[in-house]
Amino acid sequence: MRPYVVVNVAMSADGKISTRERRQVKISGSQDFARVDRLKAGSDAVVVGIGTVLADDPSLTVKGEECRQYRKNRGLCEHPVRIVVDSRARIPLTASILHKGSGLRIIAVSEKADPKKVADLKNSATVIVAGDDTVNLAALMDELGKMSIQRVMVEGGGELIAGMIQAGLVDEIYTYIGNLVIGGRDAPTFVDGEGFLTLDEFPRLTLIEETRIESGILLHWKVERSKHSEKNS
Amino acid sequence: MRPYVVVNVAMSADGKISTRERRQVKISGSQDFARVDRLKAGSDAVVVGIGTVLADDPSLTVKGEECRQYRKNRGLCEHPVRIVVDSRARIPLTASILHKGSGLRIIAVSEKADPKKVADLKNSATVIVAGDDTVNLAALMDELGKMSIQRVMVEGGGELIAGMIQAGLVDEIYTYIGNLVIGGRDAPTFVDGEGFLTLDEFPRLTLIEETRIESGILLHWKVERSKHSEKNS
Repeated sequence: MRPYVVVNVAMSADGKISTRERRQVKISGSQDFARVDRLKAGSDAVVVGIGTVLADDPSLTVKGEECRQYRKNRGLCEHPVRIVVDSRARIPLTASILHKGSGLRIIAVSEKADPKKVADLKNSATVIVAGDDTVNLAALMDELGKMSIQRVMVEGGGELIAGMIQAGLVDEIYTYIGNLVIGGRDAPTFVDGEGFLTLDEFPRLTLIEETRIESGILLHWKVERSKHSEKNS
Repeated sequence: MRPYVVVNVAMSADGKISTRERRQVKISGSQDFARVDRLKAGSDAVVVGIGTVLADDPSLTVKGEECRQYRKNRGLCEHPVRIVVDSRARIPLTASILHKGSGLRIIAVSEKADPKKVADLKNSATVIVAGDDTVNLAALMDELGKMSIQRVMVEGGGELIAGMIQAGLVDEIYTYIGNLVIGGRDAPTFVDGEGFLTLDEFPRLTLIEETRIESGILLHWKVERSKHSEKNS
């Protein structure tokens, strides 16, 4: 069975997740950071796209001691499985995600990935091949399901999330909206990709809860199963 | 004195104000529509950019009979002054805003606007020339202040709002967030333009109130006077 997928992002009041130069921006504070850490600690896997790895080099480890202890007490590895969707295997062999912290890493590539690079990656990660040209996200989720990964957190970026939503694979979305304006017609948003065009295509959400956190607000959405997503899943 | 400026926009949960094809999307329902109509009726002027006129051809009239009556009872014209920021005077002479409803229209152009077109526009609108190449928004607001326009509502689009925020001219922002995903790296957001790049530059907001309306949520922000905006105003 496919895992339950929760997207978590922070955006500016005008819907940007970073500047047009792809520089990471501090959108939330320590209280929201702790919430995200708990969400991560409660997930079996965390997924990001290669763009996020190249821009920010995140380690995707659980940061809080309590959160790590919570996992250890349950017989789990300190960190969830860390997954990079990387069709062409562009991840640097020195990427933090491959070296920081214990636990399984998965690099999801397509058939187009360079076999030499894939062989090198196998020294520090499990490689899943899914899809001819780009990673087939539904097939990847199926593979994760077979590995008993039941709860997946997606942290970005906008291209990966767009692909996940397009394929009808997202169940919930948390958007923390910070009290700043980033602006920019070329600045990334949390759902980039080609975008949807007609009323029929727009994925519909239900607002479950809104919560003020620090100077911003957290919106918690559930994704409705549209005809569109059923068609693709 | 410069007018008090309130931005009002509707966006998808992922921060888009329309599709990548610039097609208008129904983001909110009749209840939010009535709120926007009241906000408009309470304004001395409504401003949009030429991009919005070319894409949507709005009339910017007050729609509700009660709202019109409210204005008439106060000795005001049914509709606020309707203003288009249109540096090159590209507005079609057939645009709805020039023909629908009573009251003053203003087309704000720069020195670069075609004098012949400007002469034609003067048959149905007041023309304000402000700025050499593009409209100088601060100078335009000064002109409006001299005309006793004290409260301005800006309805979009993303390029005009970006310019207004960049120039430190915006006081409040209402963003209605609808329960849908539009997506698209090229879909417009409500603050496009070049965007801000550093922590020092990002305009800061204060969340005044959040209100659920129909299936979405309305966020009401106040713009803090930053060093940045002071420098530019």
